[in-house]
Amino acid sequence: MEREFNYEIMKEIKERWSLRAFSNEKIPKEEVMAILEAARYAPSCFNEQPWRFIVADDEEKLAKMRNVLTESNQVWANAAPVLIAILSKKTFAYNGKDNFWHQFDAGTAWGYLSLEAQRRGIATHAMGGFSKKLLRESFDVSEEYDVMTVVAVGKMGDKEKLPDDLKERERPDVRESLEKLIYKV
Amino acid sequence: MEREFNYEIMKEIKERWSLRAFSNEKIPKEEVMAILEAARYAPSCFNEQPWRFIVADDEEKLAKMRNVLTESNQVWANAAPVLIAILSKKTFAYNGKDNFWHQFDAGTAWGYLSLEAQRRGIATHAMGGFSKKLLRESFDVSEEYDVMTVVAVGKMGDKEKLPDDLKERERPDVRESLEKLIYKV
Repeated sequence: MEREFNYEIMKEIKERWSLRAFSNEKIPKEEVMAILEAARYAPSCFNEQPWRFIVADDEEKLAKMRNVLTESNQVWANAAPVLIAILSKKTFAYNGKDNFWHQFDAGTAWGYLSLEAQRRGIATHAMGGFSKKLLRESFDVSEEYDVMTVVAVGKMGDKEKLPDDLKERERPDVRESLEKLIYKV
Repeated sequence: MEREFNYEIMKEIKERWSLRAFSNEKIPKEEVMAILEAARYAPSCFNEQPWRFIVADDEEKLAKMRNVLTESNQVWANAAPVLIAILSKKTFAYNGKDNFWHQFDAGTAWGYLSLEAQRRGIATHAMGGFSKKLLRESFDVSEEYDVMTVVAVGKMGDKEKLPDDLKERERPDVRESLEKLIYKV
């Protein structure tokens, strides 16, 4: 099944998908900083900006970050030259109270990051398959933060290098119809 | 203080901000559907697509939606021709278990929506100031969903029509430095 678009939307949204065939080609620091800058300008409740990023872009940090991923993610994500963990701060800075929106807002920042990357010809794939506990231990992340995702960042690589089962799945996922997403009232 | 950009990023991200001076000019249905289409193509954990949208775009629904907003939001948001509530489904469809990422993923969808709107010259402002309880009652939203935000959607209007205190604040918020957002490891 192919994606279908009923309305004209932004090129970056239409063309982005969570590929697994990453190339190990290095991503210049400048590009990594630019995609974080995009995330930085996401909106958030009370402008709290609860998002934090652990950027693994050298061999030492990459080895630590790969190690927290499930084996099934390591199979393909280990090729990515950058892995970014996204954290979200649970409480508001201004009053220390629980921020109901912190995960939601961190998700918005991830959205901005993903589209700026796409604009630059850089693929991203957010993963849920990793050990939160091991990530906390490995990178000394306190309970002040939720650990939301680890994102593989890099150029598209050669699909033929993927294992057969992943080769089969290496295409954009389809979506529910718009009708289903609109809550009937 | 003005926003500063250290890296070149997407026009829509640079130019978007959460304004309050909405015009009451109608937004064609086609445009509303297009911004929802953008949200639809956000990535999500296991492609669950936990986001749901309650679209208030006629007088009856708008009246109900305005009524759930805090008074301080009604002051400006009542002018917006469209209000969209964003819900997120707490459990995975495929196994009924808790989806740790549902709010995060709904936030990503909101990010995509906001940028597609911006591309079309449509402003958006997500609000946390509303009664979740009243929204649930008014639109019959079950506990299966979290109620995340109500977004004002419309064209930019005349800043001079805002009350004085809001007129003062009618400019883009600045952000923390990138350095602060990068978790030290």
